[in-house]
Amino acid sequence: KDEVEPKNGRKTFYTVEEERIEQAQRSVLISCPAKTNEKKFLKYLSRHGDINKYFFYESYGMYAVVEFVHKESLTSLLNGTAIPCINHEATMPFKSRLLSLRNTGSVDQSAPQCQSQTTIPINDLIQRLSNENSIDHQITSLTEMYQLTEENVCLRYLVCSLLKDIAAAYFPECKIRPFGSSVNGFGKLGCDLDMFLDLDDISGRNVKKPKAGLSLEYQTKRAASERAATQSILSVIGECVDQFGPGCVGVQKILQARCPLVRFAHQPSGFQCDLTANNRVAMKSSELLYLYGELDHRVRCLVFSVRCWARAHSITSSIPGAWITNFSLTVMVLFFLQRRTVPILPTLDHLKDLAGPLDKCVIEGNDCTFVSDFTKIPLRDNTETLEQLLQEFFEFYGTFAFSRMSINIRKGREQSKSEVSPLNIQNPFDAALNVSKNVNGTQLERFVGLCRESAWMLQQREFNVPHSQTRAATRDRAPWGLAALLLPSVSQAAGVKVRKN
Amino acid sequence: KDEVEPKNGRKTFYTVEEERIEQAQRSVLISCPAKTNEKKFLKYLSRHGDINKYFFYESYGMYAVVEFVHKESLTSLLNGTAIPCINHEATMPFKSRLLSLRNTGSVDQSAPQCQSQTTIPINDLIQRLSNENSIDHQITSLTEMYQLTEENVCLRYLVCSLLKDIAAAYFPECKIRPFGSSVNGFGKLGCDLDMFLDLDDISGRNVKKPKAGLSLEYQTKRAASERAATQSILSVIGECVDQFGPGCVGVQKILQARCPLVRFAHQPSGFQCDLTANNRVAMKSSELLYLYGELDHRVRCLVFSVRCWARAHSITSSIPGAWITNFSLTVMVLFFLQRRTVPILPTLDHLKDLAGPLDKCVIEGNDCTFVSDFTKIPLRDNTETLEQLLQEFFEFYGTFAFSRMSINIRKGREQSKSEVSPLNIQNPFDAALNVSKNVNGTQLERFVGLCRESAWMLQQREFNVPHSQTRAATRDRAPWGLAALLLPSVSQAAGVKVRKN
Ligand SMILES: Nc1nc2c(ncn2[C@@H]2O[C@H](COP(=O)(O)OP(=O)(O)OP(=O)(O)O)[C@@H](O)[C@H]2O)c(=O)[nH]1
Ligand SMILES: Nc1nc2c(ncn2[C@@H]2O[C@H](COP(=O)(O)OP(=O)(O)OP(=O)(O)O)[C@@H](O)[C@H]2O)c(=O)[nH]1
Ligand SMILES: [Mg+2]
Ligand SMILES: [Mg+2]
Repeated sequence: KDEVEPKNGRKTFYTVEEERIEQAQRSVLISCPAKTNEKKFLKYLSRHGDINKYFFYESYGMYAVVEFVHKESLTSLLNGTAIPCINHEATMPFKSRLLSLRNTGSVDQSAPQCQSQTTIPINDLIQRLSNENSIDHQITSLTEMYQLTEENVCLRYLVCSLLKDIAAAYFPECKIRPFGSSVNGFGKLGCDLDMFLDLDDISGRNVKKPKAGLSLEYQTKRAASERAATQSILSVIGECVDQFGPGCVGVQKILQARCPLVRFAHQPSGFQCDLTANNRVAMKSSELLYLYGELDHRVRCLVFSVRCWARAHSITSSIPGAWITNFSLTVMVLFFLQRRTVPILPTLDHLKDLAGPLDKCVIEGNDCTFVSDFTKIPLRDNTETLEQLLQEFFEFYGTFAFSRMSINIRKGREQSKSEVSPLNIQNPFDAALNVSKNVNGTQLERFVGLCRESAWMLQQREFNVPHSQTRAATRDRAPWGLAALLLPSVSQAAGVKVRKN
Repeated sequence: KDEVEPKNGRKTFYTVEEERIEQAQRSVLISCPAKTNEKKFLKYLSRHGDINKYFFYESYGMYAVVEFVHKESLTSLLNGTAIPCINHEATMPFKSRLLSLRNTGSVDQSAPQCQSQTTIPINDLIQRLSNENSIDHQITSLTEMYQLTEENVCLRYLVCSLLKDIAAAYFPECKIRPFGSSVNGFGKLGCDLDMFLDLDDISGRNVKKPKAGLSLEYQTKRAASERAATQSILSVIGECVDQFGPGCVGVQKILQARCPLVRFAHQPSGFQCDLTANNRVAMKSSELLYLYGELDHRVRCLVFSVRCWARAHSITSSIPGAWITNFSLTVMVLFFLQRRTVPILPTLDHLKDLAGPLDKCVIEGNDCTFVSDFTKIPLRDNTETLEQLLQEFFEFYGTFAFSRMSINIRKGREQSKSEVSPLNIQNPFDAALNVSKNVNGTQLERFVGLCRESAWMLQQREFNVPHSQTRAATRDRAPWGLAALLLPSVSQAAGVKVRKN
């Protein structure tokens, strides 16, 4: 039943990351006229070397991502590329790997096939799911439709790589690493692109003392604190992105935030981007989520279904506020899977015990060590179906003692709350922190109410088997199962229920 | 009597510039402990390759400029250089060619000899000049003491080169070219460093149309105008200099000025720096002044003396205002030398007639063409002494018809004024512009009064021959000749005179 295969086999997080970063460095992003002859296009580019893979997509016009076999092909390609000459003095003569294809020859009639980079609208989803024959199929089908495609992941790494070129102008050895849902396995098409500017590899930064005698050091500017240094670096990079970054619009420097960041929209990819620096724990969280997601195919399926359900009922939101975040929701699913009679997921403490010497990792005093090698992790033989798990998830959280207990995936067991926030999900790498501190009582109540209502619905025969009759006009079935859970009526019903209690 | 030799033989402006830029790229600036053993230091550096030349100087501590024979030596040197590790997280890990030498071995007792990068104080100058035996000697002596030294010019190009590294991060083919008094031959030790960011060489910027068929272009950001593009570029570079540029302090972005600029102090060199972009005419003015200065050794001598005299009496100032600028003063000297009975300098129109095809140059519609090859310029046989010329300079401007006439070095002849400004010095490359528009009536009157007073003094035997008696205590002579012209009493006398008129 492994219809949703772990896409990169069983590679560790860092192996996948390194491969992707390297591929992205051999790639280029090209804006193309809508009518572009694919064959001519490939022939034109192949003069610079063999192409490994490529695809087209639409986003404010048509674009192509082209990955060469050798990095040198890019050098050759860029050498033959011109700065646009019309009104040239008012152009920022900044060269990047975002190019435009011009066709001054005969107009082509064909248009290449485009890969979609967005999810289908919720109503279409509901319809598609209703046509499946079991809730299990609905859940895997939703996951397949929502999860990042191979192409979308390539595009994400390419955008990081383009941004890296800007940052590398000053910090040649820096890396820009995606984190969060772009890489943790739980990303939905269209999710934002969280990026981390990693300056730790800058040679000499974490370096040996010089030998006796003469030695040379770079003269550098000092900042008042590590935070101030991060702010300065992000400020300059933000300025460059704003003034030079082709396709980068709406640049905001949010430097006073707890975690300073630069936010912008990358038009050619359609991604909303957040660039942070000095954010190593978030990177580690992403790795942990990735690992959990790879351990059992049911993990991702359940997370996608729960996230989609939560978004449909405005439990989560794209605007920050007192809402539960996708990250919190994911941790809740992981915790639930640890709490099965036969646990599907091991505790973080267990993952730590399995760690090898190379896995050791301490960040700002917090031990973030856990195993990276999947083969070392023994799994229990749990055979529950996705349908069962979804049902039980709603029951679990519909009756959880939120007022007394906190959720802790390190121990895999609820802990007595030592905090007043309505919802307490302990940060896996710093138990004293609450990942869901922002959530207020109303939002938690709404969540609990919806869980109960959804659990109830899944028990009704009316909802938990496919409707046999199809609607005359469209031949589509009426919503049932997971599809029914996404209908507004669920939240209306739950709203009534909460008010009744 | 050619005591002040043209320093670079008869090389054209651009030949000199190219050589200097290339030397600077092979050079590095190193902050050293005051007690540094020169031999050990050189031996340490020579491991990376042969050193072409080097020197030490003081400026908030001791520094060394080291020029390698090969550029590769620098790569090797920088590879062995570390980012400082104390409190490393709060350092900007930006690598430049400004380094610090550490000595963790035995403390050295010797200190290398330092080259001075500043002029002597005015009172010392007056004393030194008084000890010369003729006014001609006084004038050449002042010139020798004031003019930029070989080392100081190297340091100026090195600072440009360091700044170029910052700008080249985004515009790899850019150049940073010094202009103004740093290169026009009239610079005094300690004068500011005017720099021009030249983006015109960026390949493809001024480029051919693509052939029919497919072609690629860089996607670039557009600015509303050329001026807006310049402002954006300077804004980003200013930000980088401010946040990352080691030793760069007090960075001001003056982007709303007629000619937008970034101003900062470069502490390790002690230079006040002005970075502009898109300022090609000023570059051409500098070339013209350089050419005039190279034509006859008396040109520089006279300009230095007049500038020093003007500064001593606050005719010029380091603060912008209604004062005459050094640039205007220089043009006035050039004009005076064109107006001799046997002209010492040719007119700009004549220099234009002598130009070859490669000298052709039109900037923003203004013809800036003039000959660059010195050997093509025939010179007249004028044998006036520096003393005569200085005397005549003061008489010339003490009696010039400023109210009716403008100064025009293109024609080498005064023109009827078509403007109301008290002082009208026509821009050599745009006759409609007045280089001294800023000068008000009071300042012009002060200048004229001082010219008259100085002319009068130089005619008095009391002032125009060396005083025979030396002062008992110091064995120094009382001020006479040029030295006497620098005393405050001259301006006091002139002040009285102006008021009497
Ligand atoms: N410790 C902690 N980490 C957080 C918190 N919020 C976000 N993060 C981390 O930052 C990453 C990116 O944050 P988001 O973009 O909000 O969440 P996401 O996981 O990418 O999910 P999307 O909503 O799909 O973007 C998350 O994956 C976490 O690793 C928080 O409240 N606490
Ligand atoms: N056309 C024009 N050019 C000017 C004017 N002022 C300055 N420049 C140009 O800009 C250059 C640098 O200006 P400054 O730094 O003020 O003058 P400078 O010649 O370097 O002399 P210093 O006073 O020693 O710095 C000059 O050499 C001129 O080429 C002006 O009013 N008009
Ligand atoms: Mg995210
Ligand atoms: Mg100047």
